[in-house]
Order: sequence, then structure tokens, then C-alpha cells
Amino acid sequence: MKNKTILLANRPTGMPAQENFRFEEHQVPELQEGQVLLKSLYVSVDPYMRGRMSDAESYVAPYAVGEPVTGGVVAEVVQSRNEGLPKGTVVLGNLPWQQYSIHSGKGLSTINPDITPLSYHLGILGMPGLTAYFGLLYIGEPKPGETVVVSGAAGAVGTVVGQIAKLKGCRVVGVAGSDEKVAYLKEELGFDEAINYKSTGNMNQAMAAACPDGVDVYFDNVGGEISDAVYLALNKFARIAICGQIAYYNHTSVPSGMRVEPILLKKSALMKGFIVSDYAKDFDRAAKDLAGWVQEGKLQYQETITEGFDNIPKAFLGLFTGQNTGKQLVKVAEREV
Amino acid sequence: MKNKTILLANRPTGMPAQENFRFEEHQVPELQEGQVLLKSLYVSVDPYMRGRMSDAESYVAPYAVGEPVTGGVVAEVVQSRNEGLPKGTVVLGNLPWQQYSIHSGKGLSTINPDITPLSYHLGILGMPGLTAYFGLLYIGEPKPGETVVVSGAAGAVGTVVGQIAKLKGCRVVGVAGSDEKVAYLKEELGFDEAINYKSTGNMNQAMAAACPDGVDVYFDNVGGEISDAVYLALNKFARIAICGQIAYYNHTSVPSGMRVEPILLKKSALMKGFIVSDYAKDFDRAAKDLAGWVQEGKLQYQETITEGFDNIPKAFLGLFTGQNTGKQLVKVAEREV
Repeated sequence: MKNKTILLANRPTGMPAQENFRFEEHQVPELQEGQVLLKSLYVSVDPYMRGRMSDAESYVAPYAVGEPVTGGVVAEVVQSRNEGLPKGTVVLGNLPWQQYSIHSGKGLSTINPDITPLSYHLGILGMPGLTAYFGLLYIGEPKPGETVVVSGAAGAVGTVVGQIAKLKGCRVVGVAGSDEKVAYLKEELGFDEAINYKSTGNMNQAMAAACPDGVDVYFDNVGGEISDAVYLALNKFARIAICGQIAYYNHTSVPSGMRVEPILLKKSALMKGFIVSDYAKDFDRAAKDLAGWVQEGKLQYQETITEGFDNIPKAFLGLFTGQNTGKQLVKVAEREV
Repeated sequence: MKNKTILLANRPTGMPAQENFRFEEHQVPELQEGQVLLKSLYVSVDPYMRGRMSDAESYVAPYAVGEPVTGGVVAEVVQSRNEGLPKGTVVLGNLPWQQYSIHSGKGLSTINPDITPLSYHLGILGMPGLTAYFGLLYIGEPKPGETVVVSGAAGAVGTVVGQIAKLKGCRVVGVAGSDEKVAYLKEELGFDEAINYKSTGNMNQAMAAACPDGVDVYFDNVGGEISDAVYLALNKFARIAICGQIAYYNHTSVPSGMRVEPILLKKSALMKGFIVSDYAKDFDRAAKDLAGWVQEGKLQYQETITEGFDNIPKAFLGLFTGQNTGKQLVKVAEREV
């Protein structure tokens, strides 16, 4: 059986491109005792992967050049020599960008396919949903009536942040990159205000106008001038969760700009960076809360699903030009069972 | 009786200077029922006062032009028509830069003159000591064996920060502006390492060499390139207390430089600004701890005491060129009783 795989061909300088990836085809080897053959169904593409394409020190180890790119994948067991994972089981794992993978079963979590769409486990019930949950609730600690701003608001994380903040009784302001996204945030997700940072003339004025009572919580996926505008509107004792800094991911030098430290001093404000794995001990509680909200219809969820294994690099590259609304996924195959 | 006072003559642009202050002489008015006449003994000069000389929004209200400058003063009651404050009582208060002040007694705290030198209440037992205590222990949360870096290490706050960190079992590295201060920190206060930022060639290298296990806690009084060097050495889950940003106090535009946000993200690090009054509810506990450490000889304390009321502006201006080691004070008069 033929198996396509996507390797890191070389490391990008600045914006990544199609030529940083290479496709190869191999034969799938025979299963050994204890192993399963996994067929990839949905492959997640995420902004943090840009960091792993570089060899600069980051919070996750870099991908090796000439090795498969890996990430979150929902897959089905299509052959099994492992009693714990019979044929037909659906699993979530950190797997290579491949059509098929041989796996020992260690570190995979099984998914109940009857409750929510399988793809949700790469989004609202997976890493992006958990990221939104912990950054907003554990660092931001929003209180009813406070103003919460989220950048990258129409993305996989931002859409969940804004909706949880609404559940908590906050005024929610999103920043996104198109009028379509702004309309989606306000009309579909119930954001109180949303700003199109690409078309607004003066970001500082737009932020001040959208937050007449100042900003108490800022969930930052982006960095750069959007953040500067929020900093200027911070209230005393504000909390800032640094989740992503996509504005700088493709920078080739150390980013510079407005110093935030004097503002944090003046406002007795808190800023904290995090990665979802920092909160691993509370994953179960968070996943239960998120699943509950989804089932009760309190959290809307949108996906941008690209079809076809060969389009994985393209879907990934689109993240950096704002092609997606909500969680960007690639559907690689149909479930067999 | 003649009474000299120091007024804010005009607001500085950039570095403050003698001509921003004006001396006036007035007659001391008659005491009304309930009032006391206070004779200033020790006047505190502090970096935060630079902020109050500007009318830019800050964490404390600006001084008014044409009005007396105010700050921490230890004074003696030399006349009293207030039963609660008999003649001879020594008090601490936020008072004008004057030789004598008429006061209702409200908001003054009385000092026991027999336990520690009076001046300590403007330093290690006062605002600078409390600032060190809360920033280090409440934000930094140092654990035994961790590395703590403090900038402005030879100042009123920094000297206390470093010594409390040593009491907590940490490796302590100070940054200061002369070889004399470096020697003082290492030889007198027990710092493990100290860096003279003015003479060290490459600050990043010097910081890395002084912190071979990285930096877990950074208490920042300064900002600027010293902070950048610390940021590059931060460990995962580091905590940064932003206490002062003296590098920028005399800036005339919004400071810019290296963005710290991507580093906080990478390291899951926390940064928090504060002002000592944020922790007012715990002042008693902190003051008791500090006084205990001083009396047990566990905290060394150094003052730079300038003599003479007329030298208050000069002593204040010296803070911005690093003239002081430890707490800078001005002794205005001897106690009468």
C-alpha cells in the first residue's frame, strides 16, 4: 500500500512557502505485534507550527529537516495487532503528516465518534479550545461587566475566547482582518464590538472607541500594533494573556517596538505567556466544561476545512495571510467504518 | 518664625534640573485648635517623584506647578494643640518639602524613636522596604536555589530585595552603576554576583555568565538594555516584578526597544507592574517582618544622607546619575527632644 508523507525540506527565512515542504511516497511496512495502522482523517494546521520550522529556541522542539512534519491528527485504526485499539477505533494523536501511520498506540487518546463531529477534537474540544479556556480563565480571570479584548478573534482560539468571555458576562471586543470576519464575530458569535484592523484608519482611536470603559483583560494571539492600541487603553490591574505573537513569527530579527513595561508599571497590570501544556493537570476539567457548553449550544464553532492531503501545506500557509475563519483543518480521508 | 519651602517652578522636559524648583520663605502661621507644628527632620527623595513632576498620566497624581513638592518626611511635633500628638512626638507623613508644616495630624503615623534610627522609616521600614518586600515575595515568589536578578541593586529598594532573596536561599545577582557599588553588594550585602553595567563590555554576555542556571526572578527598577539582557536569560516560568523604569523617566517620547512579549510567550513567564499601595492591606505584616530582620541583624542597611534643607533638589537630581548607594535622604534638622 502506497503512503504519501510531507517532510520539512528546508527551514524558512521569514514567511514560509510551499518549497519548504517536500512530498514523498513510501510503501507501508508490515504491522508488528502491538502495533496499529492509522489512517489519517483530519489533519490540523496551526500557527505554532511556524515556530517548529525554525531551529531557534522555542517552547516546542523544532522539526528536523528531512523528517515528516507532525501535529494534531484525528485517525482511524484500519488494521490492528493491538488489543486495546481494535479496528474502527478513532483516535487523536500527535502524528506525522502522512496518509497512513504505523503506531504503538502509546500517547493516543480515543474519541467517541457519536457525540460531536470528529474534527471538533482538533479544535474546540482539542488544543485550540483548551488554549482559549486556560488563557482566558486562568490568566485573564474575567469578571462580569469587565471588558475583554481578543486579537486574532476570528481564529480557532479567538472565537472560543470571545464566546467564553460572553458566557462570563463580559463586554467582548474582537480584532480581526476582514469585514466578513467582523460581521461573523458580531452577528454569529455575539461579540459586542469587532474591529477590522486592516481597514480601520487609526487603530488606537478605534480601540478606545470600542472600549469606552477601558480594557480589563486582553487575550493576545497577534502582537504588534494591535497590542499597542490595547496597551494604551488598559485599566488599572488589567490582565494580559500572551497566547501567540503571529505578527512576529515570520520576522527574521528580534522584534522591536513600543515598550510595554512602563505601561504595566503605571497600571499595576499583569502579563503572562503560556502554552496549553502548562495546564495539563486540568485538561479533563476544561474538556468537560467545553464539551458541555458545545452540547448545550452555548458555544458556536466554525471550521474552515480544506479537502485533500496534498493541500496541507497550502492550508498551513493560509494561516499567515488570514485565509481561515475559525479552525483551519484539512480533511484527508473518509472514515471507513 | 521663618519657614523655607521648595515649590515646583515648572515641569521638566527630559532630565530634571535645579531650575525646575523654586525656594520661597514664609512666616509660619498661628496654630489652630487640633493642629500641630511639625519640624522636618529627614526628607526622602525618591525616583518616583520624577513622574509626579510631569503632567502625563501616571500612577500618582502630578505635583501642581507653583505648589510645594511633597513626599515622605520624618518630623517632630514642636508645638501642639492636638492631644493625640504631644510635643516631642516623632511622626512619619507625606509632607511638603518645608522646614516647618502646620498639620491636622490626620494620616500621620507615630514613630517609636528608641528602636531603630528615625531615618529608617523613610527606607528599609518605609516605602522602599515595603516595595522590595511585596515585589519580591508577592510577585517574584522566589524559591530556594533559584536565581534572582535585581537592577538598581545598590539603591534603596534594590539593596533590600537582594538581601531578602538571600534570606530565602536564592542565588542573587545585582546590576549597579559603579565598581564601588558592585563591591558593596558583594562584600557587604552578600550578593553572589554583581555587574557594573557602565563598564561591562557586553551586557548580554555578562548576564549569562553571572546566571549560569538562568534567571527565575527579575526585580526591575530600571528597564532598558539591562532588562533586555535579563530577558534573554530567563528560565521557563520566570517571574518579573516591574517596580521602576528609571531608564525612561526622563524620556520625552514613548520608549521603544526589544519586544518582551515573544519571550514571555516562549518561557511561559509572568511580568507584573506594581506600586506599594497595591498591597496596603498587608503593610503591617510586612513592616513587622522587615523590622524583625533588621533587629536580628539579617538585613544590612545603608543610607546616603545629604545635610541641609537647601540641598534637597540636588540630592533628588543625584538619583538620576547614580550618586547614591542605598537610600538617599536629606537631613534637615536635629531632633529637639
